[in-house]
Amino acid sequence: MHFKKPIPYSKFTTDSSDEKNLKNRRDFLKAGLSLTGFAAASSVATPLIAAEASTTLPKWSQYLGNSVDKFPYGMPSPHESEVVRRSVAWLTATRESSINFTPIHALDGIITPNGLCFERHHSGAPEIPAIDHQLMINGLVDQPLMFSMEDIVRFPPETKTFFLECAANGGMEWRGAQLNGCQYTHGMIHCVQYTGVRLKTLLNECGIKTKGKWILAEGADAAGMTRSIPMDKALDDCFVAYSMNGERLRTEQGYPLRLVVPGWEGNMWIKWLRRIEIGDQPWHHREETSKYTDLLENGKAREFTWVMDTKSVITSPSPENAIRRGGRQLIKGIAWSGRGAVKRVDVSLDGGRNWVTARLDTPVLSKSLTRFYLDWNWDGEEVLLQSRAMDEFGYVQPQPSVLHKERGVNSVYHNNGIQTWLVNKNGDVENVRLG
Amino acid sequence: MHFKKPIPYSKFTTDSSDEKNLKNRRDFLKAGLSLTGFAAASSVATPLIAAEASTTLPKWSQYLGNSVDKFPYGMPSPHESEVVRRSVAWLTATRESSINFTPIHALDGIITPNGLCFERHHSGAPEIPAIDHQLMINGLVDQPLMFSMEDIVRFPPETKTFFLECAANGGMEWRGAQLNGCQYTHGMIHCVQYTGVRLKTLLNECGIKTKGKWILAEGADAAGMTRSIPMDKALDDCFVAYSMNGERLRTEQGYPLRLVVPGWEGNMWIKWLRRIEIGDQPWHHREETSKYTDLLENGKAREFTWVMDTKSVITSPSPENAIRRGGRQLIKGIAWSGRGAVKRVDVSLDGGRNWVTARLDTPVLSKSLTRFYLDWNWDGEEVLLQSRAMDEFGYVQPQPSVLHKERGVNSVYHNNGIQTWLVNKNGDVENVRLG
Repeated sequence: MHFKKPIPYSKFTTDSSDEKNLKNRRDFLKAGLSLTGFAAASSVATPLIAAEASTTLPKWSQYLGNSVDKFPYGMPSPHESEVVRRSVAWLTATRESSINFTPIHALDGIITPNGLCFERHHSGAPEIPAIDHQLMINGLVDQPLMFSMEDIVRFPPETKTFFLECAANGGMEWRGAQLNGCQYTHGMIHCVQYTGVRLKTLLNECGIKTKGKWILAEGADAAGMTRSIPMDKALDDCFVAYSMNGERLRTEQGYPLRLVVPGWEGNMWIKWLRRIEIGDQPWHHREETSKYTDLLENGKAREFTWVMDTKSVITSPSPENAIRRGGRQLIKGIAWSGRGAVKRVDVSLDGGRNWVTARLDTPVLSKSLTRFYLDWNWDGEEVLLQSRAMDEFGYVQPQPSVLHKERGVNSVYHNNGIQTWLVNKNGDVENVRLG
Repeated sequence: MHFKKPIPYSKFTTDSSDEKNLKNRRDFLKAGLSLTGFAAASSVATPLIAAEASTTLPKWSQYLGNSVDKFPYGMPSPHESEVVRRSVAWLTATRESSINFTPIHALDGIITPNGLCFERHHSGAPEIPAIDHQLMINGLVDQPLMFSMEDIVRFPPETKTFFLECAANGGMEWRGAQLNGCQYTHGMIHCVQYTGVRLKTLLNECGIKTKGKWILAEGADAAGMTRSIPMDKALDDCFVAYSMNGERLRTEQGYPLRLVVPGWEGNMWIKWLRRIEIGDQPWHHREETSKYTDLLENGKAREFTWVMDTKSVITSPSPENAIRRGGRQLIKGIAWSGRGAVKRVDVSLDGGRNWVTARLDTPVLSKSLTRFYLDWNWDGEEVLLQSRAMDEFGYVQPQPSVLHKERGVNSVYHNNGIQTWLVNKNGDVENVRLG
């Protein structure tokens, strides 16, 4: 079978902490290897010999552990220190205008912990005191208003779970397999329970004039990030969030206020939201013209490609989660659709020739991550792993070749093509592009 | 109206960091007061005068913010530094065998962030390397087995959201209003999306003998915490969790493995789970006899009171969330039931004489927190706030007097009585006990 292998890991990372962590990870895997015995046991657990039960107690069963006041705000176990957001040094000119990646290979369920939600800034993440922050609504309204945070938290709130995906997620993969690891190929995504107030509620306080058909959302960062959003969407399911996963927003996710635009590209979810202007047409600002449009083969650009299409990725096995023992395996991954709910996910072991339907964990929520699983017995042979998601409207995640035919290879946005992982005979997993 | 006021805050806290944070909080509230104008505005937002829109940009809109690699694992905004777990120094003899409290007054939605989930340890929280941890299942089984963490993550997983409440939550309130703040009166609770494997699946691997009617779950901490659980519950909805809210368990929540016992008292959710023994009767160990039984007036103790009864609390207004402006208010709180789903929550403004039904946010999940809201216009008069929850089986949360009549005042466990907050004319809120 013919496929393109990715650039070796060492070529694209220059972050020394990455290297160190990768080494730790390797050591960890090696240790696991010697402990469990690679490709030998086909049964999962070890039968207990009576004598084993009476070995000396480990030290953590003999001495007092940490006290309750050691960490007033808790952090992960030191044994999970490699599970962090990571960036790629060459991706943008400065770290203040860059992106990092959620470690999706190490996560379970559908919620992303706040500390691991990927970041994308255009002028860095500003620290804004909530007490000094205000949201202005102006333009084609009956009464322009300024809302303090104290004002906003008085309105009837709601809590909803949504994924947020950068339009460029997987963008570096357009021309072939570039990055070896699902954290890098698919990690510009997170999924959070947001609490906030419907945008409709705030707009109604001001009164929208009949000519008001668009909103411009503006951030309080130094980039003054702005995006145009049609009024239908604004009045449908958009809201202004002040909490994520139970606590107030994190700085890098827009504290104290962020716009939530369910199912649409992350760039539109304006952070540090300070102003909403009502207008009669889109503004065509920088981030919706020279950026976040999709340049086609003929030199024209698709614009207003807001919805994040149906997509999925297998997070284990993956380059970060090599197979270290034969026999029973758990294939797991995430799927999502900006149009609604994921209806089905199929998994292929032979590069897309044959498909088996995976099990979806519940709840399956609209415009949220959905977790899928497939039990599998590995015989030690080379395998080409793929997953493809279908949404509730019948749309099926395409192979990359279909996207290439439609759109060429100029754009880095809206790549929802099927991912292929090559499982080698030694259990290592590589990012490859078929065809 | 006659009611008992609580002990002043300064009497029960000796934690200097608490004092400091309380002072910061007071300063914050004072600042808020001067900014928004207390008890004056009845409209929520401020009409915008055109000139205001052209003021100088704040500094965070002028300079670059934090770069993406500042926090590989992110932390809350420094402006939210008072939202932490807190302990009460006099509660137990040592910090290694103590408890702290979730800041429920500052949270939204139904998920508790991992860093804020209350802790209760009996010998501190041990740091256990996942690679060295094993789970033994022995006793009345066909084949005793040892499971490594590598073994356990191969079994079919599931993700479920459940609350965990300490049996002693509210225990200090049995004899009257003792603690001024809902973090202290109701903060021995958290609600988490757990991922793990059904206990049934692991037990089936070993094969349970017909005589096996109970399990003993044992922790790897130095306390060697053990609890007996009937087989029916073990085979119903118990599972062994390795992840919480998407990432691996936190150290203080049992990393790398915890037993999840939905709806039942937190002490049974054995952390650092190292062994499950199958037996034909309960073991009557220390933590299910001298502790975690309910001593009655007649000197006898109720035992095996595992289920956490239906309960609720208003988290705002509350002693931590005083009212700082008249007019429109949002009453919000949490409700839960160890028996199943919360069906309804009512709110009283007059100490339980009249009730209004609150709005429940979705999803309403079984054995999980449910968030409720009520919009309210405060006229500046004294108010006695209460909430009462009803579960799907028609059980109604009782007034404390009902519990006293049934059980006396000896026990500190299973207090699910209705909480009363007194809202004073100046907007301050106090914990009081009616009658």
